[in-house]
Amino acid sequence: MSRWKPDARGRLERAALELYNDKGFEATTVAEIAARAGLTDRTFYRHFADKREVLFLANPLVDILADATATAPSSLAPLGVIAHALTEAAPVFDERADLARQRQAVVAANPELQERELAKLATLAATLAHALRARGLETATAALAAEIGIAAFKVAFENWIDDPDRRSLAEHVRETLDTVGRLTTSVEHPAIPGT
Amino acid sequence: MSRWKPDARGRLERAALELYNDKGFEATTVAEIAARAGLTDRTFYRHFADKREVLFLANPLVDILADATATAPSSLAPLGVIAHALTEAAPVFDERADLARQRQAVVAANPELQERELAKLATLAATLAHALRARGLETATAALAAEIGIAAFKVAFENWIDDPDRRSLAEHVRETLDTVGRLTTSVEHPAIPGT
Repeated sequence: MSRWKPDARGRLERAALELYNDKGFEATTVAEIAARAGLTDRTFYRHFADKREVLFLANPLVDILADATATAPSSLAPLGVIAHALTEAAPVFDERADLARQRQAVVAANPELQERELAKLATLAATLAHALRARGLETATAALAAEIGIAAFKVAFENWIDDPDRRSLAEHVRETLDTVGRLTTSVEHPAIPGT
Repeated sequence: MSRWKPDARGRLERAALELYNDKGFEATTVAEIAARAGLTDRTFYRHFADKREVLFLANPLVDILADATATAPSSLAPLGVIAHALTEAAPVFDERADLARQRQAVVAANPELQERELAKLATLAATLAHALRARGLETATAALAAEIGIAAFKVAFENWIDDPDRRSLAEHVRETLDTVGRLTTSVEHPAIPGT
């Protein structure tokens, strides 16, 4: 397990996640977070606008996904591009797996934070869709591939959080996207009412 | 086009959607909605808790999706079950296409309503996942199929809203789910970092 590093931002983040898990997000104050980190309120506000922003940092994923989508080999099918982008982004989480698990528990316990999380995922889907359109994919197809990518990422992320074997998130992403293929293998369409 | 019916609830809904589109959701008051519907505030509050609830009614989709998933032929693959459930639910929207388009414009104009909409879709995904598990599907696979189903529904819905040919939502759902199959046809996996 990593020990606290001297950086103020990281100490504040760890202190906040511990308190959110111990006392609940609502009951935790900025003063308590700063005190536990051995820092002042003023320092907290230099790094975060409020206690919610500790959970929703300016998102490095947006840039990683956009870049990885833009530079993926042109031979890849749409979901191959998605797989490339998501596996490029996965190490961001593996490098801070304990924090990610703590954060997930806090978000899962609070409906307002869950709505914020869904909005964040929608932003990631829009980022992916935009990057896929820039590769020449038609708008609706790009939107679909992006939404499926984020859907797969959500499921892979949950599997990773709960994985007793602690396999990497990239492995879970790959496994989940493989499953997408199997789900569609024998799709049969029912009669469509009204057509 | 259907004319106003004598039912208070329907009149309030139509009045609200017109005002939300004309003036914006934030700027519209319950008093204005009631007045436009020719009814009292008291009547409004007999039908809706607040002006947001007009847009997020107790959701008939939850029951339709759960029932259709439970009763889908056992021969269907997971996404076949999803296609069955979504095409069963689609006529709910086709029967009130004009209202659905008005509502979509209101939600698209307001970030808070968009977050609420995402939460509603997450509830539908959870409903589908639960119904798929009840059919014997393994938890992670059920979650993935459900998330993909809702992702496809979102894209199909947008295509339907914008369709100049006014084809049915069920057709758009089928077309979108067909596309899912094509997206996965030639997926190639990149090297997985860290494995």
